[in-house]
Amino acid sequence: MSGKVEQKKNFQLDLAKYLSEKDFIYGPEPELYTPVAGFYSYGLVGKAMKNNLEGAIRQVFVQNGFFEMEFPLITPEIIWEASGHLKGFNDPIIICSKCKSSFRADKLIEEQTGVAADHFDNGKLIDTIKEKEINCPSCKGRFNLDIQRQSLMMKTIIGKDTVAYNRPETATTTYLPFKHYVNFFRGKLPFTVFQIGKAFRNEISPRQHLLRQREFTQAESQMFLSKEMKITFPPFESAKKTELPLWTEEMQKSDKKWAMISLEDAMKKKYLKNQAYAWNLWLSFEIMTNAGIPKEKIRFRQHHSDERAFYSDDTWDLEVELNSFGWVEMVGISDRTNYDLSQHAKFSKQELTVRTEDGKVFVPDVIEIAFGVDRPFYALLDLAFSRRDIDAKRTVLSLPNKIAPIQVGVFPLIKKDGLPEKAKEVLAAIKEFRTYYDESGSIGKRYSRLDAIGVPYCITIDHDTLKDNAVTVRERDSLKQDRIKIAELAETLRKRFA
Amino acid sequence: MSGKVEQKKNFQLDLAKYLSEKDFIYGPEPELYTPVAGFYSYGLVGKAMKNNLEGAIRQVFVQNGFFEMEFPLITPEIIWEASGHLKGFNDPIIICSKCKSSFRADKLIEEQTGVAADHFDNGKLIDTIKEKEINCPSCKGRFNLDIQRQSLMMKTIIGKDTVAYNRPETATTTYLPFKHYVNFFRGKLPFTVFQIGKAFRNEISPRQHLLRQREFTQAESQMFLSKEMKITFPPFESAKKTELPLWTEEMQKSDKKWAMISLEDAMKKKYLKNQAYAWNLWLSFEIMTNAGIPKEKIRFRQHHSDERAFYSDDTWDLEVELNSFGWVEMVGISDRTNYDLSQHAKFSKQELTVRTEDGKVFVPDVIEIAFGVDRPFYALLDLAFSRRDIDAKRTVLSLPNKIAPIQVGVFPLIKKDGLPEKAKEVLAAIKEFRTYYDESGSIGKRYSRLDAIGVPYCITIDHDTLKDNAVTVRERDSLKQDRIKIAELAETLRKRFA
Repeated sequence: MSGKVEQKKNFQLDLAKYLSEKDFIYGPEPELYTPVAGFYSYGLVGKAMKNNLEGAIRQVFVQNGFFEMEFPLITPEIIWEASGHLKGFNDPIIICSKCKSSFRADKLIEEQTGVAADHFDNGKLIDTIKEKEINCPSCKGRFNLDIQRQSLMMKTIIGKDTVAYNRPETATTTYLPFKHYVNFFRGKLPFTVFQIGKAFRNEISPRQHLLRQREFTQAESQMFLSKEMKITFPPFESAKKTELPLWTEEMQKSDKKWAMISLEDAMKKKYLKNQAYAWNLWLSFEIMTNAGIPKEKIRFRQHHSDERAFYSDDTWDLEVELNSFGWVEMVGISDRTNYDLSQHAKFSKQELTVRTEDGKVFVPDVIEIAFGVDRPFYALLDLAFSRRDIDAKRTVLSLPNKIAPIQVGVFPLIKKDGLPEKAKEVLAAIKEFRTYYDESGSIGKRYSRLDAIGVPYCITIDHDTLKDNAVTVRERDSLKQDRIKIAELAETLRKRFA
Repeated sequence: MSGKVEQKKNFQLDLAKYLSEKDFIYGPEPELYTPVAGFYSYGLVGKAMKNNLEGAIRQVFVQNGFFEMEFPLITPEIIWEASGHLKGFNDPIIICSKCKSSFRADKLIEEQTGVAADHFDNGKLIDTIKEKEINCPSCKGRFNLDIQRQSLMMKTIIGKDTVAYNRPETATTTYLPFKHYVNFFRGKLPFTVFQIGKAFRNEISPRQHLLRQREFTQAESQMFLSKEMKITFPPFESAKKTELPLWTEEMQKSDKKWAMISLEDAMKKKYLKNQAYAWNLWLSFEIMTNAGIPKEKIRFRQHHSDERAFYSDDTWDLEVELNSFGWVEMVGISDRTNYDLSQHAKFSKQELTVRTEDGKVFVPDVIEIAFGVDRPFYALLDLAFSRRDIDAKRTVLSLPNKIAPIQVGVFPLIKKDGLPEKAKEVLAAIKEFRTYYDESGSIGKRYSRLDAIGVPYCITIDHDTLKDNAVTVRERDSLKQDRIKIAELAETLRKRFA
């Protein structure tokens, strides 16, 4: 292993251990029995953080006019026939002729050569494996040059014999109540909807911790609109001055770095096809930065034309640079045209159209933002963890205030003299915040414990508190300590968390 | 049908239609294709309300020291072997000898005779059907007197051949990270944890809309504690004066109505076995009333001793009186002793114990609060819907402020004269609230639309607003109108929603 690869590998292991010990992530689950790869659970600290992250994502969607819905996870077969998943949603498997281990052929190529191979057909996969002389990573043996396709769909039965699947994505299920959307939005495009919920993929060998799981939480939005509306999209006006780190297909091919470009200029230079699509890039950037991902760790990579699904008009990935895995895809933004609605209209034999005021009837196009919540969750910790050693003695997780799983620690200096009782008063005064009460060990030890799970503020109740009704509020990163009246505590914290 | 039964039936149908038209609940899903019984989705209005409800539930748990976690929904077979679900979790099916329709035998008995039969064994089910001369509800034919057991578990495969199930409940999965809890709580009982998440049951014939589904959202808490701690449970002190509507086994058997009894008195009279259990009853009452279920619609029904699971020491159901279905079980509170942990210790061959400061090592007991989120969701709408006709002309859904899916309507009086622009200013000033902007139709029509989905406040921007920077705030139920400065709007609303 090269120094850099080894460094990343070590960081991955350190982080995974830390996340488990500090109750962010347990797994693979079931830990108590025989763990199965690709299943993790959110622990007593991590789940609160995941709720915050989902709340931050939801907030941006809702404030931009998107409405949430929740569709069942278990869905009958015909939906996945219509969407194309039943036929096309599978992993290419290749088996070692010597040790019989099986691998995902596209991931193998990617790991060994750095070439993105997830859109290669069987022939191209085999040719690449031959050409690059890729052997079995386990035993160095040769591969059987034969690709088998394993479906990623998890099948089950409803009732006595209705074949159904655990959905492999939220997007398809968001399309299905289309007629309700027409009614709710009173026919006026764009219809903007989203889901945050579980999805399932039976990957052959899931790896990379939370980044590639068999069960995960997705967040996906759909914007239904007309072709005219794509070109002139009024909300674009207020976003057009924003500069985004864009990395076009052209720049990638000519080995140029991505560049900060305003959306307005990107439109002029024809990097982006239309205003509505540009606005959706802006929105994904808003979602990630509002959740606390640092701007300077983000870039947008345009898919190469041979990398996109056949129905996609344009696709860009928002990528984030992690200490553990380098640049990782976090969000995909796709113009899916009217492919999905047309497919469901065909399979369900129903009309899925809108009628404009001037009587035009058509199937709307869709611009989609799609991501897994688990990835930004992991990214936030990866980036906070890299900054943990603020000084040699302190281990600090510098999570954004909005995301921190516990907001305030509350410590009576000692376990007697009425200080615990006074601390209960403080807890009551700030009950709108997520607090952690701790009365055992030295104050220093208590600070350390909460620094390590990213708690932004700790409050100490001491003997003076009994006289002056004030407490010490200590800030995690700066170590700054303020003396604040209990009566003003809630308002002070409210401002700091605003 | 008797008048009362018919009235309920009509109410059920009215409500179901309303919930779909007003975008609370769509389904059964997939509506677009062939619907499958027992699967519903939360619509563009309903999902926001469900989020609020889950938030209100979470709030009470968290403020009472419970920590949330999230375990995978797909879980290997051995977990369900250990928990007993694989063997014992099934529906008793009986088939009509004439028309071959199949029915759940216990539900059939319940519906026809009013007797709770869900703990009857096959013999007792058959005896009751014979004795009460129950015939097929579809064709009046006789039943084959033979009970078949259909598993409620939804099976799937992970990888190539690992048998797994979509979990039938959250509770079992919450037990599994027990060792992490020991670490997180530093061994100090009680450990208090909960999950809110999906569960799946392949019922033979799900009915009653959201009340009995094949996929649903559960909320379940576990309190791990010692036998001593059950008897003397300090938090009981602050709850003991609360009066709850208790309906003991004894009262039920002697045809007495439930009675309002303080927890303190209930302990004295030995209606409740211990303080910790009593506190959990109190907590379930807190959860339901904090979510907006009216106190007077609640009662606690003690399970009969032959109705409880064999390992349960005591079980009470919190029931709510609905207009559509009468008294319905909403929450179950059970003392599960140390049954589950002992089973998982046995099957996983690991020690699941705690050690007290004086060196005693034991398997803790568990008191569990278990409910489906969908039921209180349905109950809130059932109860608000019954009050919808506040006066003859107005259809009003009087949802609690905390639960209302949209908090504020924002209406410019007319679509010109700069009023829409001013309205955008108002939206910006109150962006912390969930708003709905509407500029089409008469103000009266716009009020009606939002009254019908329970929006508590509507704000109108008129020509005076341009001069005095004040708006009209109209309250849904009282129709009271206040003139409020835009600068003070956020603070005013904050107070009303507090």
